[in-house]
Amino acid sequence: MILSNILPPFSGGIAALMAPIPFLATVVAEDSPIILSGVLLTLVVIYLASKFGAEVARRLDFPPVLGELVAGVIVGVSALHLVMFPEGGLSASDSVIMTVLQGLNQLTPDALTRIFESQSEVISVLAEIGVIILLFEIGLESDLRQLKEVGIQATVVACVGVAAPFAAGTAGLMMLFHVAAIPAIFAGAALTATSIGITSKVLSELGQLKSKEGQIIVGAAVIDDILGIIVLAVVASLAKTGEIDVANVIYLIVGATAFLMGSILLGGVFNKSFVAIVDRLKTRGNIVIPAFIFAFFMAFLGNAIHLEAILGAFAAGLVLDETDARNELDALIKPIADLLVPIFFVTVGARADLGVLNPTVPENRAGLLIATFLIVVAIIGKLIAGWAVFGQPGINRVAIGVGMIPRGEVGLVFAGIGSASGILDKPLEVSIIIMVILTTFLAPPFLRVAFGLSTNPIPESTTAVETASE
Amino acid sequence: MILSNILPPFSGGIAALMAPIPFLATVVAEDSPIILSGVLLTLVVIYLASKFGAEVARRLDFPPVLGELVAGVIVGVSALHLVMFPEGGLSASDSVIMTVLQGLNQLTPDALTRIFESQSEVISVLAEIGVIILLFEIGLESDLRQLKEVGIQATVVACVGVAAPFAAGTAGLMMLFHVAAIPAIFAGAALTATSIGITSKVLSELGQLKSKEGQIIVGAAVIDDILGIIVLAVVASLAKTGEIDVANVIYLIVGATAFLMGSILLGGVFNKSFVAIVDRLKTRGNIVIPAFIFAFFMAFLGNAIHLEAILGAFAAGLVLDETDARNELDALIKPIADLLVPIFFVTVGARADLGVLNPTVPENRAGLLIATFLIVVAIIGKLIAGWAVFGQPGINRVAIGVGMIPRGEVGLVFAGIGSASGILDKPLEVSIIIMVILTTFLAPPFLRVAFGLSTNPIPESTTAVETASE
Repeated sequence: MILSNILPPFSGGIAALMAPIPFLATVVAEDSPIILSGVLLTLVVIYLASKFGAEVARRLDFPPVLGELVAGVIVGVSALHLVMFPEGGLSASDSVIMTVLQGLNQLTPDALTRIFESQSEVISVLAEIGVIILLFEIGLESDLRQLKEVGIQATVVACVGVAAPFAAGTAGLMMLFHVAAIPAIFAGAALTATSIGITSKVLSELGQLKSKEGQIIVGAAVIDDILGIIVLAVVASLAKTGEIDVANVIYLIVGATAFLMGSILLGGVFNKSFVAIVDRLKTRGNIVIPAFIFAFFMAFLGNAIHLEAILGAFAAGLVLDETDARNELDALIKPIADLLVPIFFVTVGARADLGVLNPTVPENRAGLLIATFLIVVAIIGKLIAGWAVFGQPGINRVAIGVGMIPRGEVGLVFAGIGSASGILDKPLEVSIIIMVILTTFLAPPFLRVAFGLSTNPIPESTTAVETASE
Repeated sequence: MILSNILPPFSGGIAALMAPIPFLATVVAEDSPIILSGVLLTLVVIYLASKFGAEVARRLDFPPVLGELVAGVIVGVSALHLVMFPEGGLSASDSVIMTVLQGLNQLTPDALTRIFESQSEVISVLAEIGVIILLFEIGLESDLRQLKEVGIQATVVACVGVAAPFAAGTAGLMMLFHVAAIPAIFAGAALTATSIGITSKVLSELGQLKSKEGQIIVGAAVIDDILGIIVLAVVASLAKTGEIDVANVIYLIVGATAFLMGSILLGGVFNKSFVAIVDRLKTRGNIVIPAFIFAFFMAFLGNAIHLEAILGAFAAGLVLDETDARNELDALIKPIADLLVPIFFVTVGARADLGVLNPTVPENRAGLLIATFLIVVAIIGKLIAGWAVFGQPGINRVAIGVGMIPRGEVGLVFAGIGSASGILDKPLEVSIIIMVILTTFLAPPFLRVAFGLSTNPIPESTTAVETASE
């Protein structure tokens, strides 16, 4: 029996008995089996959506991850209201799953709100652990030597891919749409982002992760991620004080560089001790647990120094890719990733509110016009970045540019902060959200075409047995 | 970049900007990267503790799970204060990990409390998912036909194992210690529990899960779990109104029986469709995701009808054990279980406050005397249950009895509810907690001796390669 799981059948009675004694955390104890129910039911919905979406996408010859994103939209705030988060003024009564729990447990509105928030927090953390594991897996699949070889190209692609859409977006908004400087800069900044999670997953599904183009894209997406953090810091301090917090910007640049370089250098030493430790362990989980201690600790470090958890996980994967335990680790991480990564993609889709695309809502119309402009800049800006690659004759520049297009959840952060801080008016906020959604959903099929894979079979498992024995 | 992960470097500024706009969930957005940091750091500590404890235990020839429990005690409330939960009057400042996060992020006391609660909720749910996956795995390893064969023996063992310690404990407390009837009944009820998680994990580690004794113990522990829910319902309504809520008791008995029987009967049908579905899926996770949709849905059902999530997961494992996909599924679940199950055992240890064993605290002394009595009853009561097995010549009755001894987290629920409701005074509460801790920690080594395994090697992996290729 799980601690306190036993309470609900007579929660009224026990709650009444418990109320006057403060030292036992009664609120938590009473809610927690219901929170668990909510989490389990949400996971069932997420898994059903992810499998359904992935399988339909595959049969239509799209990357499975696109299907997971679309299925997420269907079960999320835009349609079925099953996978919901307490954001944008949504309350527990907007969530179908909360309504089900309410019916099963006769909860007070206060208790329901608490449970909705806790449940959503758990699902959010699971989604973040999902993308951490995805980037750990991508790091394991990437080749550090090859990444070093394409390092300069990746840096150029990232810098051009940040500068071009930022400049074109800001200038265009100011000149064509007469937007004031600060909101225009903010919207321009939102154009710089690249969703490393979506890009790398699509590359992996297309079997292109280890190609030179794939490694340039992953390298550039990592650098773009760091540049994005710096751009947001600059824009946010500009918006707040009208000045740029130079010290913070320098801290972020130095911190990011030191973190990535340091972890890779130290990794060379850790490599050998990792294998030595794994060989000595004799109980279950002798490879998985040390690997995840390292991955989660690096993710914590990345998060703690105000960078990104996923950067730490990616670095951890790169380091462990150099060890002899690598092939075993690859096989063991697959089922773990299969279980946790879909939570990330489905929730990204579930959070995207397609209501902003509805042209019958008057305030969306102005947004749709600006959005069209932003989407054009978003696509062309990254395609230019692809053309900036030099010294690589015969490389697929279009594929590299297309690989940088999806903004994903990163762009939504800009829109959320901009709107909350009052910098962005409604049309501009809506247009950024539309730009983010469309670049995210268009990039996977575009990438497939850019790699000329339209007629080749996707190099993924075709039978149950094959997958299981991978 | 993860949604809102970008906030902390300038959280002061953004928080100030965000404060007046209510529609964005600023609290959640601002806290969530710090909650993620807390979860990651706690998981690193839990994994370090679990591996360290398991390896030391194995070298000392104890079951690894005992090492995980003890390591949990060391990192928990009793010693290092690393893995802490907001229970029993503990606040964020008692947690070393929260102090670290506080140092990294300059949080207000309110924010720290919020983050402590959210972080603990996430770890609690992860632990519960861990024990759900453990019971799913145990179900997969169990053999439904063999369980049916030993069903009557298991029922007898469970009933005797509930009745004997309940009667002896209640009578002894009233006659020897002059405890009033209601608290004596409550303490007697706490003696009935069996921790199915700890028992089945130890059996699995000893390679005895599939022996006749092992299957009787697992079957009896499942029935004991259901009896425990009923006993608690009876005792709680007795304590509250002085009467027994007969309708609720009948509902629980009928519900539990219908749930287990129904899921196994329906499972026979679901079996074939499961394999048919798995064979048609062509994207990653084609076996794992359908299996977990089933397991989590059954766990949700078990929880929703006010039984137990783990009963649903166990039933799901039993059903899927009958399918052709079973061997592949076994292999795929191993790394997932290795990652999530230790969270459960370490947190069970971390929540156990060994401070109640300190005889220099005056109020513990009365408890220690009663505890000695309760421990004797707890052990003898379950040993009698083992001797109640009939029609099985040559069976190891001692092992069966010993297998039922660990009370685990179940006993702590009784102590918590009894103390919160004011039924139990401090000495009686302390004595129940001591009884729970000691039976939990003594049972694993006892079980090993009872199976006569003291000189045989534990049939578990001995090298890294072997584990990985299992």
